[in-house]
Amino acid sequence: MSKIVKQEENFSKWYTSIIENANLVDYGLVKGTIMFKPYGFAIWKRIQEEFNKILVSLNTAEVCFPMLIPYSEFMKEKEHVEGFNPELFKVSHLGEKKLEDELVIRPTSEISFCNYFKKNIKSYNDLPCILNQWGSVFRVEKNTRPFLRTSEFLWQEQHAVFADKKEAFDFSITMVNEYKKFVNDYLSIAVLMGEKTENERFAGADNTFTIEALMPDGQVLQSATSHYLGTNFAKSYDLKYQTKNNNYDLMFQTSAGLSTRIIGAIIMSHSDNNGLVLPFKIAPIQFAIVTSNEVNKDSDELKAIYKNLFGYKYQTYFVEKSLGLQLQENEIKGIPFQLILGKKEIENNTITIYRRDTREKQNISFKEFNQNFIENLIKEYSSNLFNKTEKRLNSSIEFVNNIDEFKKALDNKKIISAYWSGNAEDEKKLKELTTATPRCFDWNQKIDKTKKCFFTNKPNAKLVYFARAY
Amino acid sequence: MSKIVKQEENFSKWYTSIIENANLVDYGLVKGTIMFKPYGFAIWKRIQEEFNKILVSLNTAEVCFPMLIPYSEFMKEKEHVEGFNPELFKVSHLGEKKLEDELVIRPTSEISFCNYFKKNIKSYNDLPCILNQWGSVFRVEKNTRPFLRTSEFLWQEQHAVFADKKEAFDFSITMVNEYKKFVNDYLSIAVLMGEKTENERFAGADNTFTIEALMPDGQVLQSATSHYLGTNFAKSYDLKYQTKNNNYDLMFQTSAGLSTRIIGAIIMSHSDNNGLVLPFKIAPIQFAIVTSNEVNKDSDELKAIYKNLFGYKYQTYFVEKSLGLQLQENEIKGIPFQLILGKKEIENNTITIYRRDTREKQNISFKEFNQNFIENLIKEYSSNLFNKTEKRLNSSIEFVNNIDEFKKALDNKKIISAYWSGNAEDEKKLKELTTATPRCFDWNQKIDKTKKCFFTNKPNAKLVYFARAY
Repeated sequence: MSKIVKQEENFSKWYTSIIENANLVDYGLVKGTIMFKPYGFAIWKRIQEEFNKILVSLNTAEVCFPMLIPYSEFMKEKEHVEGFNPELFKVSHLGEKKLEDELVIRPTSEISFCNYFKKNIKSYNDLPCILNQWGSVFRVEKNTRPFLRTSEFLWQEQHAVFADKKEAFDFSITMVNEYKKFVNDYLSIAVLMGEKTENERFAGADNTFTIEALMPDGQVLQSATSHYLGTNFAKSYDLKYQTKNNNYDLMFQTSAGLSTRIIGAIIMSHSDNNGLVLPFKIAPIQFAIVTSNEVNKDSDELKAIYKNLFGYKYQTYFVEKSLGLQLQENEIKGIPFQLILGKKEIENNTITIYRRDTREKQNISFKEFNQNFIENLIKEYSSNLFNKTEKRLNSSIEFVNNIDEFKKALDNKKIISAYWSGNAEDEKKLKELTTATPRCFDWNQKIDKTKKCFFTNKPNAKLVYFARAY
Repeated sequence: MSKIVKQEENFSKWYTSIIENANLVDYGLVKGTIMFKPYGFAIWKRIQEEFNKILVSLNTAEVCFPMLIPYSEFMKEKEHVEGFNPELFKVSHLGEKKLEDELVIRPTSEISFCNYFKKNIKSYNDLPCILNQWGSVFRVEKNTRPFLRTSEFLWQEQHAVFADKKEAFDFSITMVNEYKKFVNDYLSIAVLMGEKTENERFAGADNTFTIEALMPDGQVLQSATSHYLGTNFAKSYDLKYQTKNNNYDLMFQTSAGLSTRIIGAIIMSHSDNNGLVLPFKIAPIQFAIVTSNEVNKDSDELKAIYKNLFGYKYQTYFVEKSLGLQLQENEIKGIPFQLILGKKEIENNTITIYRRDTREKQNISFKEFNQNFIENLIKEYSSNLFNKTEKRLNSSIEFVNNIDEFKKALDNKKIISAYWSGNAEDEKKLKELTTATPRCFDWNQKIDKTKKCFFTNKPNAKLVYFARAY
């Protein structure tokens, strides 16, 4: 195990040293792939478990579709194939046999879901149909980093079809709101929420909605997206259903996804120079009880602790010599609370609580350590993590009037708010000039005809957030 | 929905019509792939959930490794690559760029696990290391059928390394025993358990242990396998650890897997001409409560039923007109018990219980329907399913002395027991002649020097089971 690099010395090396020291992943044999080690995968499983409850509450049914798609099928939706074509893994051979119609390893599964909807949705009675798949997808990436950008990544992709246009559009808004709530409440990360500009939209979508989190290095991380696909895919794949009046109408479609990138956001948002810091609700181990191996496993003290921790995820470590090494290891793993039960504590009938976020120790009597006390502790921990990211985000936003101010703010690692009325071409130009991209805009804002774009000087501008992004 | 084909008329069409009518899967866009629909996937999720508990009880940690493996890495273990080469999906292009070292979509993950063990196992303190991955693997197949043989299939693959040879070997036996127990107890299917002969072994294994289930058409289905890999991979991938005496020794390795094939075994073992019949323990819906939509959702009757069904998976269907259509749909889906609460039942303070296995209806008073009654019902249901498959298996085995008897028994759809001392070449010859293969043999049997092989007439034969197989 190598030492953790200091965040202030080299942010990027700090990030990878956290991953290495907390034993989250190894690099795979193929460039840009990662191997989830048990602890790293346990974090993703906790996210899955909790977010799946939300999906189920939204009447989402779980399916599992093939990884491979014929290239010819992929080509049917023009914008979709243009958006993904440079990034595709293509299968040309089965055994020794060369394929005439090459196969694509899915970069996303709109096409499989269209195939499913075409076969299974016959009439208005079958709508809406809301499905989700947990799996992995593949996109060729040049500059890869664990979690943040990998050629294969894990995610959930929800795909839905509706009879009613407004119902579909509203559902895509519902989903981005659900992502925001989940990331706020379960991962304790504040985010910007908004709509994507033309160039940043999903290939084949009419609207893409996004949540974006600010990392301590001033770069922004797109954390989840929800797309209103309109009838773009429905037209290309002939997705029609029989209406009440026996007509055949096109279905309206949405898709939405949250990926293992979010683990990158968790690491960067909360961790420090002593290791990982995990949000309480998705930590695989929420409480570590660290005690001497001389303590009886059935002792009254432990029994009382277990009783109070009922319903939480805890693990007990019976340590041979000094507790220090175990405490340090648990600290690197980002376990939210360590309950220390050393000789001194047992003698005095107390318990020492170590909080990972503040790194504060608190010695309290056994009597005080009750369920009420624990609940408050958890609330404090979660709010403390969230408030830090909210403060970071809010204090980072800077309004600019022109490109010089824009560049200066960017140098100061700010998120920029500016009036914008550029098109996709202008977005590309700005990116070339500054490496920053439009992240999102408030879709509810009224466009002020008198406001001019800071970049193109064209009128009808709206306020858009810009930043450098992961 | 098409009608269910009669099993006695065409077994193979019966099988696919069950899958279609119970809404388990659709065919994927790529030949030989399947799309798990919500109900089909729910069955696999139940199997995952229950078998995962067993894996955890065996100290197995969960990981998730990449789908892609460089072909050059794959070639390092000679027997392994020879065994899988004709079946590999190869990726030749990333976007438009041709790859020098092609990638293989994993047909199994020994190589990824070897990569993990090499990086993470340093000393005897790190051993044993027992890992599992739930995921999908790819093998090119010519004749494909849903669940039974598909080019992409879902499975769990457990991989483990040990310092001690005997411990590794014993663990591979433990695993095949665990599979037998699981398939017996959770899926209510009787199996033969034994070791594979040379030609049927996993590519790269010293020993392969298997469980084999008999289908009603006389064909046998390999239902799970456990492999003792010895040091074959350890030598090729240089998997060494530091011993207590500071030497560097090779690790001993095992792997074991259970796949979605088992769903094919469940369907064929239990179902009938009225649809799917599911084993109680893995049925996504164990009890269907079918009642009129005039019944109050908070009625005392329903509350009493829910209380008694606490801990089981149940769903209530409030039906508009006659209950018949809903009962039939639930029957096709193989729901073990339907609790009918029609007008008559409510008037008389009774409940009608419909059992999917026997198709018997039983009207009992509300008072009788208590937890004890339910437990007994479940026990009866599960034993009934298991006993039928056990009887089928036991009555099918026939001992033969020569090839003529062998062929005749095979025509009568028997599993054959015969003395065998052939080698891999002889196995191939027998298969060409009869289409039957050696399925397994009791690894504990003492070889009788005087017994001669029914096929080669060579001495030192042991009793081996033969059958046609899926």
